[in-house]
Amino acid sequence: MAHTYEYPRPALTVDCVVFGFDGAGLQVLLIRRGLEPFLGAWALPGGFVHMEEDLEAAARRELEEETGLKGVFLEQLETFGAPGRDPRGRVVSVAYFALVRPDRNPARGDTDASEAAWFPADKLPELAFDHSVILTTALERLRGKIRYQPVGFELLPESFTLTQLQALYEAILGRGLDKRNFRKKLGAFDFVVETQGFAGGSHRPARLHRFDHDKYEALRSKGFLFEL
Amino acid sequence: MAHTYEYPRPALTVDCVVFGFDGAGLQVLLIRRGLEPFLGAWALPGGFVHMEEDLEAAARRELEEETGLKGVFLEQLETFGAPGRDPRGRVVSVAYFALVRPDRNPARGDTDASEAAWFPADKLPELAFDHSVILTTALERLRGKIRYQPVGFELLPESFTLTQLQALYEAILGRGLDKRNFRKKLGAFDFVVETQGFAGGSHRPARLHRFDHDKYEALRSKGFLFEL
Repeated sequence: MAHTYEYPRPALTVDCVVFGFDGAGLQVLLIRRGLEPFLGAWALPGGFVHMEEDLEAAARRELEEETGLKGVFLEQLETFGAPGRDPRGRVVSVAYFALVRPDRNPARGDTDASEAAWFPADKLPELAFDHSVILTTALERLRGKIRYQPVGFELLPESFTLTQLQALYEAILGRGLDKRNFRKKLGAFDFVVETQGFAGGSHRPARLHRFDHDKYEALRSKGFLFEL
Repeated sequence: MAHTYEYPRPALTVDCVVFGFDGAGLQVLLIRRGLEPFLGAWALPGGFVHMEEDLEAAARRELEEETGLKGVFLEQLETFGAPGRDPRGRVVSVAYFALVRPDRNPARGDTDASEAAWFPADKLPELAFDHSVILTTALERLRGKIRYQPVGFELLPESFTLTQLQALYEAILGRGLDKRNFRKKLGAFDFVVETQGFAGGSHRPARLHRFDHDKYEALRSKGFLFEL
């Protein structure tokens, strides 16, 4: 190549904050480190970006290698690059956040990750590197984002009750919501569609709903602004 | 260091999308490249991250070196790392967006940037690298962000009329807004404060207002959600 650079370069990694919802609380998927540094400590799934690999592809590869998860909702969060954040030298990490439906369980670790497990978002173990900072940033992003983008549905089963949806919002926002007002807002959304199914097990069966992505996108392209 | 990495590494840059507002339309600050590749082409201000330098510090340094701007509103946008986005090899760029008040004019270029100039956001020249993609992403972020965070004030003079504020929102959103409704929402915001001043030059002088950052932060910490 005619123009190349010979400056010293930071190493580049990706890290994934993976959120799940167990019906009552927000969960975070962590791996136990199988290598130094921080051997044995809990950490976000992630690893080094390959030279010919796109950033999101690297995040998806590491997520699958370390937790078995694939095909999940994944979005870039922020890049963390403070000098000193990694004891190995200058390492800059592009962080992603993922949203995972309850029926998706992490499989296992690999050589980098000896174990993968869900933790309640409000009771996390001590994390390696600056991963607790990355996690806090992801939580703030999620809290902001569910207000104005229909991403919460990615944390529910394909069919869900409106009570489940409200419980999800309350868990993420960390406060109770007025049921009547919440239902009223939802009622105006053509893209939250009734299904033929009901949630079983209760003496008062609750109608199951689903999120109609195509209907939402059609509305959005006409200027509709989601807010819940 | 006990644990280091000897993998090949991408080069790491920062790029800045700098927005301004001239009272009628949204503006973008570009530099003309003084070096290969893309010598002579317009591009976003930016450059390589130093090994001991934080990412935002690198963005602020490059912005000042290439345009003379400092002390501006700056926030991380997204990191762009598609293989092939730079003809020199694998270069990953952490993009920032900056909001600049109208009284701040760029000074000059340096050896990397022979010239700096404002362009209307809807009439931009062809840009180097993937900078038009970065710019489109920044525009989308700004359009989303002004709805739920009071960042628009960063594009106005310290004192502004409500007509100027509405013109700013209309320019960014690309559509007209109902004046009565806009004023009604603003009227409920204790943090948009009347000053003693009036905008001169008109037969009907308009009251100048300012954004009270402390009042806004106090409300926000109590759970207030900005929306305009």
